[in-house]
Amino acid sequence: MDRTLIIDCNNKIAEVVRVFGWVQVRRDHGKIVFLDVLDRSGVVQVVATEGLAGDLRSQDVISIEGKVAKRPDNLINPNLETGTIELQASKIEVLAKAEELPFDMGNKDLNLQLPTLLDYRGLTLRHPKVKAVFKVQEVVIDAFREALQKKDFTEFQSPVIIPQTAEGGAEVFEVKYFDHKAYLAQSPQFYKQILVPVFERVFTVNKTLRAEPSVTTRHLTEVTTLDAEFGFIKNWAEIMEMVEYVIKYIFERVAKENQTELKLLDASVPQTSREIPRIKLRQVQEIIYQRTGRDNRQEPDLQPDDEREICKWAQEEHQSELVFVTHYPVKKRPFYTFEDPEDPGYTLSFDLIGRGTEWLTGGQRINDLEKLIANAEERGIDLKRSELYLQAFRYGMPPEGGFSFGSERITQNILGLENVRQASLFPRDMERVDIRLSSQK
Amino acid sequence: MDRTLIIDCNNKIAEVVRVFGWVQVRRDHGKIVFLDVLDRSGVVQVVATEGLAGDLRSQDVISIEGKVAKRPDNLINPNLETGTIELQASKIEVLAKAEELPFDMGNKDLNLQLPTLLDYRGLTLRHPKVKAVFKVQEVVIDAFREALQKKDFTEFQSPVIIPQTAEGGAEVFEVKYFDHKAYLAQSPQFYKQILVPVFERVFTVNKTLRAEPSVTTRHLTEVTTLDAEFGFIKNWAEIMEMVEYVIKYIFERVAKENQTELKLLDASVPQTSREIPRIKLRQVQEIIYQRTGRDNRQEPDLQPDDEREICKWAQEEHQSELVFVTHYPVKKRPFYTFEDPEDPGYTLSFDLIGRGTEWLTGGQRINDLEKLIANAEERGIDLKRSELYLQAFRYGMPPEGGFSFGSERITQNILGLENVRQASLFPRDMERVDIRLSSQK
Repeated sequence: MDRTLIIDCNNKIAEVVRVFGWVQVRRDHGKIVFLDVLDRSGVVQVVATEGLAGDLRSQDVISIEGKVAKRPDNLINPNLETGTIELQASKIEVLAKAEELPFDMGNKDLNLQLPTLLDYRGLTLRHPKVKAVFKVQEVVIDAFREALQKKDFTEFQSPVIIPQTAEGGAEVFEVKYFDHKAYLAQSPQFYKQILVPVFERVFTVNKTLRAEPSVTTRHLTEVTTLDAEFGFIKNWAEIMEMVEYVIKYIFERVAKENQTELKLLDASVPQTSREIPRIKLRQVQEIIYQRTGRDNRQEPDLQPDDEREICKWAQEEHQSELVFVTHYPVKKRPFYTFEDPEDPGYTLSFDLIGRGTEWLTGGQRINDLEKLIANAEERGIDLKRSELYLQAFRYGMPPEGGFSFGSERITQNILGLENVRQASLFPRDMERVDIRLSSQK
Repeated sequence: MDRTLIIDCNNKIAEVVRVFGWVQVRRDHGKIVFLDVLDRSGVVQVVATEGLAGDLRSQDVISIEGKVAKRPDNLINPNLETGTIELQASKIEVLAKAEELPFDMGNKDLNLQLPTLLDYRGLTLRHPKVKAVFKVQEVVIDAFREALQKKDFTEFQSPVIIPQTAEGGAEVFEVKYFDHKAYLAQSPQFYKQILVPVFERVFTVNKTLRAEPSVTTRHLTEVTTLDAEFGFIKNWAEIMEMVEYVIKYIFERVAKENQTELKLLDASVPQTSREIPRIKLRQVQEIIYQRTGRDNRQEPDLQPDDEREICKWAQEEHQSELVFVTHYPVKKRPFYTFEDPEDPGYTLSFDLIGRGTEWLTGGQRINDLEKLIANAEERGIDLKRSELYLQAFRYGMPPEGGFSFGSERITQNILGLENVRQASLFPRDMERVDIRLSSQK
């Protein structure tokens, strides 16, 4: 008999069907056994005799033949897409037997400490609340691409192996590359800029690697970053407008397509009905000083406390969960950042801050070769191995800018997850690459 | 004045507009200068006085104000999307000046040797014929994703840094990972299998890295691979059916969306009106023996000559430019490959061959933990650091399979490019990572 997807059972009442799936939960009621069975389309309640159910347990892979029946009104489950039906099993075949589980996967919450959650990632990802995170992330990434495709951006694939460490300096992974040394890219910055004179507008979804020497709740060594860059900007405000468009596009798709997941995780996307306010770093610091008496007005960057406070302010004063903080000092931004001619010492760059933390960073870039080289030299950055990057400027680079954000971080922020590791399928940090490194030295 | 995209000039006849772009070609005709100017939307012919044109040359970035005019009938260019109009410049502003070019970028063909093409990648990518390759590749990758999204596949991001070398053994890059060793993933195989019990059907577009110790026209050290894996297959033929669906989907979108590029590169997608024939390796070798007298019937794999010959056969006998070659010997396939119970010693695996070369590889996988471990041990493969992978099987893995192919290779094959490097924006091999390594040791 051909397979029926679980969700399609809704339209097959009184028919005999064959369903494939994983046992999620088993509930014994005397001679009757209830099984919640899951496939890619959903979950259905299967009713089986003790004999048919045998020793079935969570994660067993089974084929079930049975009749689809309407549930009595008082047993309807409004929280389940198949909540008005059940499958009355007449034959159950085990396709793959699961070993006994190390913990209960049938709970609504998977109450495990993070290390255990990750030690058993091959199993814990199957839990509905864990899996839901990555259905949201999938939509985030797809929406990012779709938003930019609609604005004439060309998608490209940026390299992971790079010849030099020009951009970051520290915290870069070294690769044994035949008889040479190479490095892992910390960002696609150089490559997206090279492609501005090729395609004018480009984006990439790409791996970036950073040898983060500390274990925090916000940092991973391997990240899937979402990057965009585009030429012929009228002014740098156009870059923030593009960010606002992309971010709102992502929120709208997540709100629409991930209703189940948002409900399951008790989360919601930020409100986006209002314009996102734009405010200079120095004004932010002044506001914080006025509101809290905390004087960070000489600091070149925001402290975590400041990020939380300015978000409160944006919510109160602008009814916005997000705020652009602009004009970071030249010395705090990369060498290719454009200095504001009307505000010397400060850059045409911005961070998007929301819910008390940084979401995204961007800005206008220097498009003049001489200025770029001078800036690099001033900081002791060697561009000898970055000849292709220099060519982009040597042969005609228009005014341009772009932005960058991590898919894990935005997923974490939308869903309000405590730790960014919860938003990475297979998180890597200095202590773990799938397994704990300490145990494997 | 606001910017008008070049393509939109078609609808602005007799209007004054402002266009941004790069000078492609300059043609001097006495006191009149013709400039082909390019932006992301297309190319337009600009007519300027000698005075306005000044010393403008190829790759200069300019802003032009001028009136859109209809061309006289005898000057219409039917090969250009804006071939019925020209832009009569009244003001030209230089936004960024290009240095003198090291070679002529205005030729229809860019007649450069590959090393020069790559040494100047920051410039040569701008040539219409070079750029066209990556507009095709963009559609290939997007079509791959769209085809699988339509079949309920979930997209995921597979790690680049991995803890062990289990799958490949040799030809793996080593990373200095804090105080440990880690490696770069040669494929997302383990991770896509781990996710079958999570999402049932998954795909990924991901970087794979391989320390190819030789320089050939078919190999790169860094590849963007397209991978899919799915559970609850009825039989392994279903995997080939999925491949056929995906490949035809890609061809259809490229044929439709890349007409300009295909014409420019004098290329066409393989004909897909027919079913792709499926034939066992041993039969292939018998056919080749019959047709050519070449006796490779004891070989475990196809030689390049054989690949070309079986493609001729498929074209002649099945009017198909593609053919599935199946049942490679167990010893030639990875340890997780499913052995055909009806044909012991041979696997339920396949390669898709076309136009004389391999396009894609796939097959059914072992889903039984004990058999998998036994196979790994037999080959001396250590799965100690692959605990997450083993968990996938320990806790219920359905019958499953999948396939994998490189985005560069398929672009090369569709476009008939001589060298796979032409199908990689920034190709890496043992001699080059952007720059030539020999010069930088």
